[in-house]
Amino acid sequence: MQPFTQNARDSVSALGEEKLIACIRRWLGSASPRAPFGIGDDCAVLPAARGRQLITVDPVIYGRHFDDTVPPRAAGAKLLKRNLSDLAAMGGRPTAAVLSLILDAKVSAAWLEQFYRGLAACARRYRVPIVGGDVAQADGILAASLTLLGQATGPRVVARTGARAGDWIYVTGELGGSLGSGHHFKFTPRLAEGAWLARRPAVRAMMDVSDGLAKDLHALTPRGCAPALDGSLLPLRRGSDVHGALTEGEDYELVFAVAARADGPALAEDWHRAFPRTRLTCIGRFLPAKKLPPGILALDTFRGYQHLRPMGPRKDPGKKT
Amino acid sequence: MQPFTQNARDSVSALGEEKLIACIRRWLGSASPRAPFGIGDDCAVLPAARGRQLITVDPVIYGRHFDDTVPPRAAGAKLLKRNLSDLAAMGGRPTAAVLSLILDAKVSAAWLEQFYRGLAACARRYRVPIVGGDVAQADGILAASLTLLGQATGPRVVARTGARAGDWIYVTGELGGSLGSGHHFKFTPRLAEGAWLARRPAVRAMMDVSDGLAKDLHALTPRGCAPALDGSLLPLRRGSDVHGALTEGEDYELVFAVAARADGPALAEDWHRAFPRTRLTCIGRFLPAKKLPPGILALDTFRGYQHLRPMGPRKDPGKKT
Repeated sequence: MQPFTQNARDSVSALGEEKLIACIRRWLGSASPRAPFGIGDDCAVLPAARGRQLITVDPVIYGRHFDDTVPPRAAGAKLLKRNLSDLAAMGGRPTAAVLSLILDAKVSAAWLEQFYRGLAACARRYRVPIVGGDVAQADGILAASLTLLGQATGPRVVARTGARAGDWIYVTGELGGSLGSGHHFKFTPRLAEGAWLARRPAVRAMMDVSDGLAKDLHALTPRGCAPALDGSLLPLRRGSDVHGALTEGEDYELVFAVAARADGPALAEDWHRAFPRTRLTCIGRFLPAKKLPPGILALDTFRGYQHLRPMGPRKDPGKKT
Repeated sequence: MQPFTQNARDSVSALGEEKLIACIRRWLGSASPRAPFGIGDDCAVLPAARGRQLITVDPVIYGRHFDDTVPPRAAGAKLLKRNLSDLAAMGGRPTAAVLSLILDAKVSAAWLEQFYRGLAACARRYRVPIVGGDVAQADGILAASLTLLGQATGPRVVARTGARAGDWIYVTGELGGSLGSGHHFKFTPRLAEGAWLARRPAVRAMMDVSDGLAKDLHALTPRGCAPALDGSLLPLRRGSDVHGALTEGEDYELVFAVAARADGPALAEDWHRAFPRTRLTCIGRFLPAKKLPPGILALDTFRGYQHLRPMGPRKDPGKKT
């Protein structure tokens, strides 16, 4: 569905500001509490937070994170799910979200309704109140940034740093082929899995795979080490290959480091009891860069998605600063 | 200063993603804590919050909230100050911010450096750590949305609702002429004033003036009432007139309702002791709509800034949903 309309009567500018905001509140429905705890005041009021909190922000932009082939409801859900995936990667759970929408006056009200309804349905599913937002106009764009607030689900938050030489590298689900298969908007963020992993001390570091494993793994790699991956172990999505699994990105899976001395078979057994439908794969380990065995994947020859280059046909999964 | 460069070597795309992110961290400097408490992980970790929290989001967009006449440092500071003004309007103080940047590959790195340095200086001034962000690319745009988290400064948060028939209407500072005078980026958010007012039970409702008083006052007006304003009392910025003061917007002043029985002279005296350099003006009161005296300003004949209309030459101060 094309988000822009040539018929001025169907556009958000025909609605005008006051009606559009009333519509947004209706479209969000029970996903958005009443002011001052939700939309309608200068700020939204949130309850006190006993434990450590987590915060992240990610956008979806028309032409980069979704296009006309993605149903608007799915684009709205993707906006929240991308952020939920970041929260999952630290073992968190969501508490509230706010949305900043920047759109051309020609955006169709019908498209926008479906976008918000998709976001709202996803927000209800994951119990994330949409507590505030802002709508601003700019020519030729349709972009929405969502800031997600969360909390640790246990005593520990798992960072990207913490892996050591010898640690095993695990990945959830399957990699590659996200754009062709529609996984990039159909995926389920690994919230339950992330919380489960955060409770296991053997899990030393974790992140989500969004720009492609070959690129993202750098952030998890201990200093002086390199990831020694066995290409034949990579869990490929149907139709994908090693190159796709390493470089395409938008996988929204968790990659994490497990202490060298941990009991791998016991971890696998516990995992499959907890998540019988989700693959867990040990794909290699971190080794001192000078002691890499022959036959491992030369990750430097694969590049994950590079942002801020002249636009190509690929969607841009966004870049955490 | 023009944010776009025709010389590819000076653009953010010439820097590339990795270097740009390293630059952003350097430009933010001490305004941005280290991961996991700042930029560099999937989420930023924030401390627990004992009291109620506040959250708000507002963008600045090139061509709407700033243009080539606004120094990039001032545009960066404005992004934070707009959000601080929303926090001030509820009596809050800031705790952390995250930034979502959407920019064309042709944005000049030099421009962006000044933008971030201006944001960082403002963040240090108001002690708001910039804990996270995202950079994404889109053609022909330069937009930044900032989500600001805060806390109540006292036992009370002041909402827009709560005014009653008979309440007096007060406004801080001066109104009108914000765009011509540069006030729209030079203003000081009324954080101290907002916190001070939130501690006074006589202050029943409060908001900031961003779209023009004529429009914004609707949100403060009790049901069945209308604001009875005396045009001769409006605190006009030099060079502005009643029409400008009511409609131009971007004033970033506080407007609030004071209980009818409150001691006005005592309030004024206390105020001038606390804020000797900031005007405080009683501009009228809320009266039952059917009992309006003759001679008051007919606010319906003035319109504040209407969003989501085909773009005019005016900047768009953004619309809270």
